[in-house]
Amino acid sequence: MNNEFAERRRLIGAGLENRELDAMLVASPANVRYLTGFTGSNGAVLALPGERIFFTDPRYAIQSRREVSCRTQVCKGPILPAVAAVVAARRVRRLGFERAHLSYDGFDLLRANMPVNTSLEPVSGWLEEHRMVKSESEIELIRRSVATNSKAFELAARRIRPSMRERDLAAEIDHQMRRLGAEKPSFETIVASGERSALPHAHPTGAALKAGQLVLIDMGAFQDGYASDMTRMLFLGAPGARVKRLYRAVLEAQLAAVDAVRPGVTAAHVDRQARKVLKAYKLDRAFVHSTGHGLGLEIHELPRIGRKDKTPLAAGMAITIEPGVYLEGVGGIRIEDTVVVTPTGCEVLTPTSKELRVV
Amino acid sequence: MNNEFAERRRLIGAGLENRELDAMLVASPANVRYLTGFTGSNGAVLALPGERIFFTDPRYAIQSRREVSCRTQVCKGPILPAVAAVVAARRVRRLGFERAHLSYDGFDLLRANMPVNTSLEPVSGWLEEHRMVKSESEIELIRRSVATNSKAFELAARRIRPSMRERDLAAEIDHQMRRLGAEKPSFETIVASGERSALPHAHPTGAALKAGQLVLIDMGAFQDGYASDMTRMLFLGAPGARVKRLYRAVLEAQLAAVDAVRPGVTAAHVDRQARKVLKAYKLDRAFVHSTGHGLGLEIHELPRIGRKDKTPLAAGMAITIEPGVYLEGVGGIRIEDTVVVTPTGCEVLTPTSKELRVV
Repeated sequence: MNNEFAERRRLIGAGLENRELDAMLVASPANVRYLTGFTGSNGAVLALPGERIFFTDPRYAIQSRREVSCRTQVCKGPILPAVAAVVAARRVRRLGFERAHLSYDGFDLLRANMPVNTSLEPVSGWLEEHRMVKSESEIELIRRSVATNSKAFELAARRIRPSMRERDLAAEIDHQMRRLGAEKPSFETIVASGERSALPHAHPTGAALKAGQLVLIDMGAFQDGYASDMTRMLFLGAPGARVKRLYRAVLEAQLAAVDAVRPGVTAAHVDRQARKVLKAYKLDRAFVHSTGHGLGLEIHELPRIGRKDKTPLAAGMAITIEPGVYLEGVGGIRIEDTVVVTPTGCEVLTPTSKELRVV
Repeated sequence: MNNEFAERRRLIGAGLENRELDAMLVASPANVRYLTGFTGSNGAVLALPGERIFFTDPRYAIQSRREVSCRTQVCKGPILPAVAAVVAARRVRRLGFERAHLSYDGFDLLRANMPVNTSLEPVSGWLEEHRMVKSESEIELIRRSVATNSKAFELAARRIRPSMRERDLAAEIDHQMRRLGAEKPSFETIVASGERSALPHAHPTGAALKAGQLVLIDMGAFQDGYASDMTRMLFLGAPGARVKRLYRAVLEAQLAAVDAVRPGVTAAHVDRQARKVLKAYKLDRAFVHSTGHGLGLEIHELPRIGRKDKTPLAAGMAITIEPGVYLEGVGGIRIEDTVVVTPTGCEVLTPTSKELRVV
């Protein structure tokens, strides 16, 4: 990883120059980790040309000495006034900040503590755009996170029995993930049965799994900081013609979207392929979210595989492909893989079979 | 809970009047849940005198119909422009927003979409101050979360054997919590053994628990939305005189702070009692964080039980008391309970024994 951090330092240097900034303040946890390797919850990096200064609080004093190689300032109070003091001492005229992450409060605190002739420049998505394209070692970490996630699914699926509660199955999934080396789920694991599968982001409840029901399982791991994401459908008993048709429609949409993933096509183009299939089934209005999203140090990263995202895909991007249909009072079906864009197309990292799994 | 939501609506009405606001935008997930009961990740409430409008995206259309009783607008795109459109239509002149939560980006998006004669008024901690004092039903939920957490600790502690890895013990704790009804841990469970216990916020690692070592376990549950928080120390084998003395110091500090909790004293006063004890042991410089924090719908809420927080405690507040000492290269000790302020003093909700547990 040391070479990668050096590469990321160079990237920051070039970015400052392009934006005519004297310094950039990076404080969102994923960006801080990307630049420094720090895994704590409260840290910030002030990036100056040829130098970075890391700020944290006393809870992380020892940990940051182990994780972070640049100069570190441990602040007893809030971090931002300490950053502002350094900004003043270094006579920074134009300071960039992360506009999507800094709160109004934080902005106000910075401005109140800085010299009047320093200007605060909102910066949008700079590191996030770089983070879209993963290095080989990042893809390796995502691959491992995906493998853990799929193994956890298999182990948990074997333990399903009728009358198991949604929340116990979710707990079993999370436990298997952890046993296999994940730090935690990358989001709250969704186990939604029957009509509740029509809620795209359902919390697992105390409801028991019942024969004749669909079960939607959406799960992901964070392992060594990197996310995975997968959705699979189970059916308890023998599915009827209606469920089979819905499943076929979503599977075709998912395969069409995966098939479209290659360098140079836009995210919106991939999204369109899924919608086209569902439209042919007259199910496009039941597809209420976008086809997917980037993932990496965060579960939701750029690009968004949606109608409006014109980002051209590039080799090294890691994205999900996850069309779904949701019919209130009936149920929902979603099928999702984690996919990496390759120089010639894409590789579906998720090894789990995409059959409607009958248990 | 319906009466409580009605009470919270009244509170919003009175707050608008006091602040001379025509409307208030509430978008932080905990505040949105407090006002409406919505448990999803993307929602906002526009509170007008005598009326509330809830905004969410299509993923939560069905869920919000079940959870939220006020008028709801499901937005296909970002929520804030839709809020701005309603603000314009209702001729809102002074719109309050949560200054600690709204991002610079969000502020900018609101401003760009609103009439020029509408002013945006940063509001600080309004709902958070109300949320400090819990209702009886909220305290009951915290009590249950605490009970789950302590039971999970007991069940996991029984399974500890030497050579177990930190991360497997953490996974076992989380699994027990979930089996007992928690949605998830209220933060990443800390299991830190040996020297690593000196990192106040250590991530569990692959290191095996070894004889002759301290093990710090900091864990909390979220159950029905409410947090609990507890830290306990284990020792593998027979602790020596140095560890015993450190433990006694922290325990005395913890008991002194708990003893000081009653309505009318300030948060800083409680913090001071813990520091005094540790100073007598010449350990005050090894106590690198504050004595505790409020908790409820979030794991960290107001007040902060620290040097500078002058908030007078009041009956119904739920707080943690968790002094600790951290010696690099040696280890750390922290003891933490969840406590509720009562009319005459306080009740320690955490039922787990505070002995140094020898395993």
